Amino acid sequence: MKIGIIGSGGVAKVLGAALAARGHDVKLGTREPAKLSEWAGGARASAGTNAETAAHGEVVLNAAAGTGSLSALEAAGEESLDGKVLVDLANPLDFSKGMPPTMTIHNTDSLGETIQRRFPRALVVKALNTVSVEVMTAPAAVNGGDHTLFVCGNDAGAKARVTSLLREWFGWEHFLDLGDISAARGMEMYLPLWLRLWGALGTPRLNVKVVR
Amino acid sequence: MKIGIIGSGGVAKVLGAALAARGHDVKLGTREPAKLSEWAGGARASAGTNAETAAHGEVVLNAAAGTGSLSALEAAGEESLDGKVLVDLANPLDFSKGMPPTMTIHNTDSLGETIQRRFPRALVVKALNTVSVEVMTAPAAVNGGDHTLFVCGNDAGAKARVTSLLREWFGWEHFLDLGDISAARGMEMYLPLWLRLWGALGTPRLNVKVVR
Repeated sequence: MKIGIIGSGGVAKVLGAALAARGHDVKLGTREPAKLSEWAGGARASAGTNAETAAHGEVVLNAAAGTGSLSALEAAGEESLDGKVLVDLANPLDFSKGMPPTMTIHNTDSLGETIQRRFPRALVVKALNTVSVEVMTAPAAVNGGDHTLFVCGNDAGAKARVTSLLREWFGWEHFLDLGDISAARGMEMYLPLWLRLWGALGTPRLNVKVVR
Repeated sequence: MKIGIIGSGGVAKVLGAALAARGHDVKLGTREPAKLSEWAGGARASAGTNAETAAHGEVVLNAAAGTGSLSALEAAGEESLDGKVLVDLANPLDFSKGMPPTMTIHNTDSLGETIQRRFPRALVVKALNTVSVEVMTAPAAVNGGDHTLFVCGNDAGAKARVTSLLREWFGWEHFLDLGDISAARGMEMYLPLWLRLWGALGTPRLNVKVVR
């Protein structure tokens, strides 16, 4: 299928290559497509402007940096996002002042909510932001795939579409629907803990399994 | 052993009763000990002022509300906390404006760090704040005990003491040391996610298991 990925950083590139390798027609979007001229996404992958990328995708993934997501999506254009599933996997982390990063949106708001407010007709689903790109694209490499992926969003159909796609694309098996897009607050504020988990385990190839 | 619990809310009471039932000499501390006159903590449990409670405990647990923790510990008194293990299980959540609560300390600081700064000679260990009191006192009731308890703090010996006590008191088996007290930031900012997990699962009898 045609997939548009907003972003040109490490997450966007690895995700794009993984989807292209599975036969999808992937376009990566960036302000300066020339930056991606050496990106080895494979024969079925290309780079374009954010506007071209959003228009290209049947589904659009926001894999831009958290601090640049809103401007990248503005450049993508509201019309191209209307009625489309927009998977937001970005985290509003500011690394500019060193480690640990600070959150630029938190506590009473989230990036997911901000994007949904700005693009009210996009079907925003927050997902994948709680795992590293290695885990996103190969969940079975962690505990045999037995761990939890959180999703939230206002549209039940869009959430069902996203979980179905993630199952098909990468073999994700265990989803936990946390409700409407305001749950993005919790999913994003989990990042400071996640960074400490990475530090304690010495690898970002980790996740949590919710148990009861 | 003699255990001092700062706090008179639900968490403090259940925790105190559970420890008293295991034969410990428990004192609950509050500004108004009369409020606890009907608390059925058992024969080995008593109530007192915060100062009496801190002096009583070989180990002190802060189970006060997050927003009241610092003033309760001020009342407990610096001398009584000097050199003592102080387990901070509070979360800086403000419920006064309705649900969801907002965090009063977050992002660039945490309650755990605030307490450690204010009482530099106390051995502050952040622990138990990521689970409900039902899970704190009976971890085996969730997934047979196979889930993760996060701990952090600046003193390795204090952390070892706390994990040893939690193993002995309640049967906790799986600890993950996240490093120094600044990891309290991540452990506290996990709470908005935890509240959504509770909502999604319909019970606070839950936890996460970190897997890799």
